[in-house]
Amino acid sequence: MRSVSIIGTHLTNFGKLDKNLKQIAAEACVGAMDDAGISPRQIEEFVLGNFASGTLTKQETVAPIVANAVGLASIPATKVEGACASGGIALRYGYQMVASGLRDFVLVAGVEKMTAAPTTKAIESLAAAEDMEIEGRTGLTFPGFFALVMNRYSQKFGTTREQIAQVSVKNRKYGTRNPKAQFRKEVTVEEVINSRLIADPIRLLDCCGISDGAGAAVLCPTETARKFTDTPIQIAGIAQVSGKGAAFEYEDLTGFESTKVAAEQAMRMARVSHREVDVLELHDCFTIAEIVASEDLGFFTKGAGSGALEEGETQIGGKIPINPSGGLLSKGHPIGATGIGQVYEIVEQLRGEAPNQVSDAKVGMTHNFGATGTVCVVSILKR
Amino acid sequence: MRSVSIIGTHLTNFGKLDKNLKQIAAEACVGAMDDAGISPRQIEEFVLGNFASGTLTKQETVAPIVANAVGLASIPATKVEGACASGGIALRYGYQMVASGLRDFVLVAGVEKMTAAPTTKAIESLAAAEDMEIEGRTGLTFPGFFALVMNRYSQKFGTTREQIAQVSVKNRKYGTRNPKAQFRKEVTVEEVINSRLIADPIRLLDCCGISDGAGAAVLCPTETARKFTDTPIQIAGIAQVSGKGAAFEYEDLTGFESTKVAAEQAMRMARVSHREVDVLELHDCFTIAEIVASEDLGFFTKGAGSGALEEGETQIGGKIPINPSGGLLSKGHPIGATGIGQVYEIVEQLRGEAPNQVSDAKVGMTHNFGATGTVCVVSILKR
Repeated sequence: MRSVSIIGTHLTNFGKLDKNLKQIAAEACVGAMDDAGISPRQIEEFVLGNFASGTLTKQETVAPIVANAVGLASIPATKVEGACASGGIALRYGYQMVASGLRDFVLVAGVEKMTAAPTTKAIESLAAAEDMEIEGRTGLTFPGFFALVMNRYSQKFGTTREQIAQVSVKNRKYGTRNPKAQFRKEVTVEEVINSRLIADPIRLLDCCGISDGAGAAVLCPTETARKFTDTPIQIAGIAQVSGKGAAFEYEDLTGFESTKVAAEQAMRMARVSHREVDVLELHDCFTIAEIVASEDLGFFTKGAGSGALEEGETQIGGKIPINPSGGLLSKGHPIGATGIGQVYEIVEQLRGEAPNQVSDAKVGMTHNFGATGTVCVVSILKR
Repeated sequence: MRSVSIIGTHLTNFGKLDKNLKQIAAEACVGAMDDAGISPRQIEEFVLGNFASGTLTKQETVAPIVANAVGLASIPATKVEGACASGGIALRYGYQMVASGLRDFVLVAGVEKMTAAPTTKAIESLAAAEDMEIEGRTGLTFPGFFALVMNRYSQKFGTTREQIAQVSVKNRKYGTRNPKAQFRKEVTVEEVINSRLIADPIRLLDCCGISDGAGAAVLCPTETARKFTDTPIQIAGIAQVSGKGAAFEYEDLTGFESTKVAAEQAMRMARVSHREVDVLELHDCFTIAEIVASEDLGFFTKGAGSGALEEGETQIGGKIPINPSGGLLSKGHPIGATGIGQVYEIVEQLRGEAPNQVSDAKVGMTHNFGATGTVCVVSILKR
């Protein structure tokens, strides 16, 4: 297998955008190709992560439609879907094409247009990521699922509502400096725990937003990368793992096997230890998700995540800076775009150009989590 | 690149099935693994072609949900989408994984559950394969698009309604002997041209059905294949090509560039000439589509397809037997399943086990066409 590097990347603003799905995706794709200094005609394969364009925007066949909009040749253009991990899946597919020698230049992207549909429709579309035959029919949505996780975690480890709220405080503080973020306002613990109740004990400020947005990246063999950029970023490890499709299948909701296995596989592939990871963009769709994943990824022992957070271990300067971009909680969560958005943030960190820069960051990790842990993609990026 | 072979395949019945999407897909996957004599735990990657499970069944994240249902390990499980060519795309992705040496055993499948939604909803979901920003908003559905094709073709080449209807007569005759087919009743030219008007000049019996169904295939390196079966079928060539996303972009609606290019690429890769192809499963979503594609694929010059059909050149015993399975017109068209369904039919032919067997068939071709030629996948299979 060949070493693969990212030579260009771009992220649109996240939020309620006055553009349709095709325009948003095109902005990211054109931006990434411009950043790489590569022509659309040089791209040999296009992979687009997208979750629910059919239900949210009444548009399918999105990959070739976007490919045509940005002037790609008549190359294969494929949509990949795996709930909230669709973007990560696109990255992995692109990685495989280049690593195996099948392709030299691959454009990967992720997009979601969520605000065109009424919010109730968006919530229904999101719920369809669960196994609808089993838990979906009970009416359990994802705030409900993570409410179960928060309750179980708090009961098992004695963690308080105030402690968990600190994820939102940290990430939204970082988000104030991220120009792409949907929410750029600091919040206090009191504001989080007194915000509107969504699914007890989850409050509005424990949740990420419903957002439009897209990200894209251009991949090529590492040996060619320096012809395009002085700061190629190597994809040193990447793993996609499937997990359970419903809450009831878990013996214990305080951890997710798919995150653990994906992290192990990606880190083994990259030959990187936890101590070597300088910065982590993690799938904080809800506050509790960050604490749980920080443990599942192996940075803290189970139950120690909230204590570590309180002690500043997940801030810049701490043991492992988590979500210096502001995370999903600040940036918003345009489903199909999120996995590529995380890659964009880590590339910025490794180039030394991030809004909240981790000093001398050499190795970064992304964690993209889908549905009830049904899919998880972890990548390790290196400069 | 390694040579890749199919060692097992399965197709469910097509039609209105009394099972949900997960059950239908699982039946095909288990059947294909049984046919190969392989255990689910040996499968290393799962790729599922599916078009619109979100709008048709309110279920997303279908690939890992099906993977769990059939006992696969926590391997990558990815949905791929490209309108009616989603199944063909899944085959190509699986082919690439094995050809490149990344994986030894890959399960590819395609599924659609269309009859759970009201027919009006199914039609709306299908229309979303078009670029909705351009032609979709005019109300042009796919029967409408192929009506434009039929009109233009007839005007340009003087082809009569009766001549075009013979596609339906041929394919539905073959379909009577296919136990998996949705429609197993012979029709006459008069019945076709007098059936209910759908989109002038297209009539009901010019159209394929709205169907449920799934197909699956197990791929592995050719060098390993004979450990599993005496009749491995090699994927000698495969190509996926993107094309235009709207009718107005075509200078002439009597041919589709994506079909031409995909055929050229797949045949070059397989080092196979037209004379060597013994049997062809072609994307006959509408009668006129078969005539047009038989030319675009290079078997007849442009405008000669309907004459060749009339002279029996596309029947068993003719120059190139097209759709001896009964095609989409008889079998039905569960969107995501169709591409894999075509592979199943060709595998049956090359094993000498087809309901309408082409004598001593050694080389087969599949042609899987999406939207307005926006995606096309062509494969060449060899025994």
